Amino acid sequence: MPADLDISDQHLVDGVVGRQLRPLAKTITLIESQRPDHRARARRVLEALLPHTGGAMRVGISGVPGVGKSTFIEALGLLLIEKGLKVAVLAVDPSSSVTGGSILGDKTRMELLSQRTEAFIRPSPSAGSLGGVAGKTRETLLVCEAAGFDVVIVETVGVGQSETAVAGMTDIFCLLQLPNAGDDLQAIKKGIMELADLIVINKADIDPRQAAVAKSQIKTALGMLRHSSPNWVPPVLTLSALKKDGVAQFWDEIMRYRDTMRGSGEFDAKRRTQAQAWMWELIDSGLRQRFREHPQVRAELAALQAAVAQGETTPAAAAHTLLNHLSEH
Amino acid sequence: MPADLDISDQHLVDGVVGRQLRPLAKTITLIESQRPDHRARARRVLEALLPHTGGAMRVGISGVPGVGKSTFIEALGLLLIEKGLKVAVLAVDPSSSVTGGSILGDKTRMELLSQRTEAFIRPSPSAGSLGGVAGKTRETLLVCEAAGFDVVIVETVGVGQSETAVAGMTDIFCLLQLPNAGDDLQAIKKGIMELADLIVINKADIDPRQAAVAKSQIKTALGMLRHSSPNWVPPVLTLSALKKDGVAQFWDEIMRYRDTMRGSGEFDAKRRTQAQAWMWELIDSGLRQRFREHPQVRAELAALQAAVAQGETTPAAAAHTLLNHLSEH
Repeated sequence: MPADLDISDQHLVDGVVGRQLRPLAKTITLIESQRPDHRARARRVLEALLPHTGGAMRVGISGVPGVGKSTFIEALGLLLIEKGLKVAVLAVDPSSSVTGGSILGDKTRMELLSQRTEAFIRPSPSAGSLGGVAGKTRETLLVCEAAGFDVVIVETVGVGQSETAVAGMTDIFCLLQLPNAGDDLQAIKKGIMELADLIVINKADIDPRQAAVAKSQIKTALGMLRHSSPNWVPPVLTLSALKKDGVAQFWDEIMRYRDTMRGSGEFDAKRRTQAQAWMWELIDSGLRQRFREHPQVRAELAALQAAVAQGETTPAAAAHTLLNHLSEH
Repeated sequence: MPADLDISDQHLVDGVVGRQLRPLAKTITLIESQRPDHRARARRVLEALLPHTGGAMRVGISGVPGVGKSTFIEALGLLLIEKGLKVAVLAVDPSSSVTGGSILGDKTRMELLSQRTEAFIRPSPSAGSLGGVAGKTRETLLVCEAAGFDVVIVETVGVGQSETAVAGMTDIFCLLQLPNAGDDLQAIKKGIMELADLIVINKADIDPRQAAVAKSQIKTALGMLRHSSPNWVPPVLTLSALKKDGVAQFWDEIMRYRDTMRGSGEFDAKRRTQAQAWMWELIDSGLRQRFREHPQVRAELAALQAAVAQGETTPAAAAHTLLNHLSEH
């Protein structure tokens, strides 16, 4: 149900579908903007782009700082370009609004890849909450698909809840680990390992023996977790991104995953579930925002919150009072 | 800000504060009822009881089936009664609506404790979602406090997300474990161990050596997790509930925890945070309910959800359309 597009919207849509860089960047800028008119325009353009989306393999990559994500993604990106594919690299980093930068920093961290016309690298949106950052990255992912990118890589930092967001917008979620005993326990503890469809032990060249130990430990740990698909056991790969050793096998595994999931129908089912979950996330945050903006809620919320904290009223009574205002006109 | 009470409400309030069993049970029945008029009445009664609440030590106890929770809680309850304290035992078991029963089953599982007039045992409310079950148990906990119980124990099953709910309504959250290597990894994996303020290895008498190994493993695991308070390192106790061996030490640790948290101001701060979080939980679920009940949302939700799943519209556009209906009169 596309809305009516004016000429400038149509220009953006045509430009993105025509695989032009400027309209692509401009659309993403609209998506990342906080201005309501920009948001409305981004929504219209996205709606018009929707029939052109869905064609990319969406790959999530997570790992703690120092694990070598940039080196790995650059090596992977260059390999894919060699195969004749176009690659977009996006990021979800909720801390980027604090640090000013982003995990990708400027493009100097992927210098070779960023010079290639077949690649498009976009740092994390730097606005606000995880939900906000993730939402904008999801939409950017769709725009990149409409612009004809064959692979969209979404990177995140491996230190918090952003993993769940990235796993929720990609087809396959890959976890990069160091050949370091205990690293796996950290990932289990944070609930990241159970999200992983594929686990990579990077820097395996530095200490191959330790990498083999880590691989066996991770396999043991994975044996206790249950993967979301009955048809897939997450493989554990050892590789060296720096030496480009094992990167081709990594991509082979991604393709094997895609074929397996397509064969069982789980590939499309997962995308449908993800889209619906995203809709509910937007509805919930929209409901919260409307609630907070209601004049009587604004007038009373702080006092009622304080009364609840002080034990002067029950949470149930306070919630009831505030919710009742929504029915009044 | 207590609402006006009619005579029958006031009768319930006076009865609960007067520590009478029938008004206590009747108030809890109102709380657990699905009828809107019962809910409204429960809200008024609770509001009037609020000044009489807050006096109990709220103890959460979790552990997988078979760990010996009932035996442990009975031994603890009898010990507390010996100390001259009154004990209420509640439960949060979202599966109880399916199984018909509850983790506490009938009171036969705590036969000795249930015969004591100083004890009050109430099975899990059997209605609906985890949020619903937990909310009713929270309110029942307050009623028990108003009725003069010194200790309120909230039991849960150790297999799902109910742990988070129970940790969110109690002052101290205790995890019962078996002397079984691997059990600790399960708890870490599920994110339960990081909630624990106190860990108990039960049935330690069966294999003391294995219990000691488990204790050391759990301590190692705990060392990697960070407790929410900088002033508390969760102790790991070995005991045998069946032989009543170690139960007194368990209570000593609870008292040490209470004193430490009171000394740092964290005890009250935690309760304030819990009350506010509960308020927001009620607001969010109220907003969702109102949303789903809106006539235009009801008319369009299913079709829009399907359109999102089929990729015919974006989650953003669908959410926007549905949310806009709320502004129309």
